[in-house]
Amino acid sequence: ADAEAGKALSSVCAACHGQNGISQVPVYPNLAGQKEQYLVSALKAYKNGNRSGGQSALMIPQAKNLSDADIANVAAYYSSLPAGGK
Amino acid sequence: ADAEAGKALSSVCAACHGQNGISQVPVYPNLAGQKEQYLVSALKAYKNGNRSGGQSALMIPQAKNLSDADIANVAAYYSSLPAGGK
Repeated sequence: ADAEAGKALSSVCAACHGQNGISQVPVYPNLAGQKEQYLVSALKAYKNGNRSGGQSALMIPQAKNLSDADIANVAAYYSSLPAGGK
Repeated sequence: ADAEAGKALSSVCAACHGQNGISQVPVYPNLAGQKEQYLVSALKAYKNGNRSGGQSALMIPQAKNLSDADIANVAAYYSSLPAGGK
């Protein structure tokens, strides 16, 4: 996967998940340093309609805009960020 | 919420999410330092059947065993752990 391409895509994600993948909103998860395959699994769950409730109403449209390659790249990018960031 | 009570409950979670909330399995998410309200939201999504696919088959029975107080305590515990752990 191409974390650089993922970084380019991440400007949308940063609005909720923070510039460095640490969210400033209590109910939005931190993504920085999260497991890459988990991020892929979660994005595909939103894309495939396997997640409802919670913030899924926000995430489903976002995930639907992403191709599988985009998902792999965004996941590679966020998993590469330091988990302990602020 | 009572993070100490959450710690007591977490021995079950540690099997997959790691002793210090950093999972050793690529598709299981790290929980350490995650947003407390997000962890509550995710656990309730599993408990209420709002998540399917991915690892939900593993998580749904776990979440169903937890009361809302347990969920709050486990979330308080994991969010209190250092995110950058190994």
